[in-house]
Amino acid sequence: MAKTDCIFCKIIDGSISSEKIYEDDDVTAILDISPVTPGHTLVIPKTHSKDFMSTEADVLARLAPTVQKIAKQVVKGVKADGFALVVFNGPAAGQDVFHLHIHIIPRKMGDGVRVGWPKAQYEPGQIAKVAEQIRKK
Amino acid sequence: MAKTDCIFCKIIDGSISSEKIYEDDDVTAILDISPVTPGHTLVIPKTHSKDFMSTEADVLARLAPTVQKIAKQVVKGVKADGFALVVFNGPAAGQDVFHLHIHIIPRKMGDGVRVGWPKAQYEPGQIAKVAEQIRKK
Repeated sequence: MAKTDCIFCKIIDGSISSEKIYEDDDVTAILDISPVTPGHTLVIPKTHSKDFMSTEADVLARLAPTVQKIAKQVVKGVKADGFALVVFNGPAAGQDVFHLHIHIIPRKMGDGVRVGWPKAQYEPGQIAKVAEQIRKK
Repeated sequence: MAKTDCIFCKIIDGSISSEKIYEDDDVTAILDISPVTPGHTLVIPKTHSKDFMSTEADVLARLAPTVQKIAKQVVKGVKADGFALVVFNGPAAGQDVFHLHIHIIPRKMGDGVRVGWPKAQYEPGQIAKVAEQIRKK
């Protein structure tokens, strides 16, 4: 189950130290050491899978309500007003540890942090073409 | 179940038009009209809940594998190399439509798009204090 060269598997088994804020049979949650905001949490399933795409559906089904439970705990703990959930899948998306993890980023009104992206616009007619490409798959 | 003043409930029932790319009994997925990248998708549960925090656990459990399935379809449709999943919960986090939706943002290597955040560092000793605040809740 654990992968010997995986930093998150080592955090889960305790051979690398971390600030754990939650643990159950399926999941460990730790504080990110390079946080966007204080309380920035990583929820890490104990079963190694390299990314969201390659994770078993039943693992994801159990994971989602646990992420909600942990997010509530984080929000209370740091007195946040809201939060973002983020998953990066693959190097092109900025994933840097190849063991699935969900970022919980607590936010406060007016915290001045930007978690997001620059918006773009489709060219006229482009959105319908893109939709058709996806529907065909 | 539907909320009369909710734009996503109106998209689900078809009274507001959209580019739907997926639909099943639980979920509608549409293209975001202000995309980060072409194929930027919103996965919208049909049952109205205002945000991730307030959604029933069983809805989340069914939703997560569906998001995976749709992400695979989007990646194939736009020939992406990866993707990000993002959920904003609450106005402080930038949520602007108060009906739960999950962003799937397809990414290509070198697309030049920045989906993320500025990283910070904890002050010495701060991470342990924050972890303790959260563990207590």
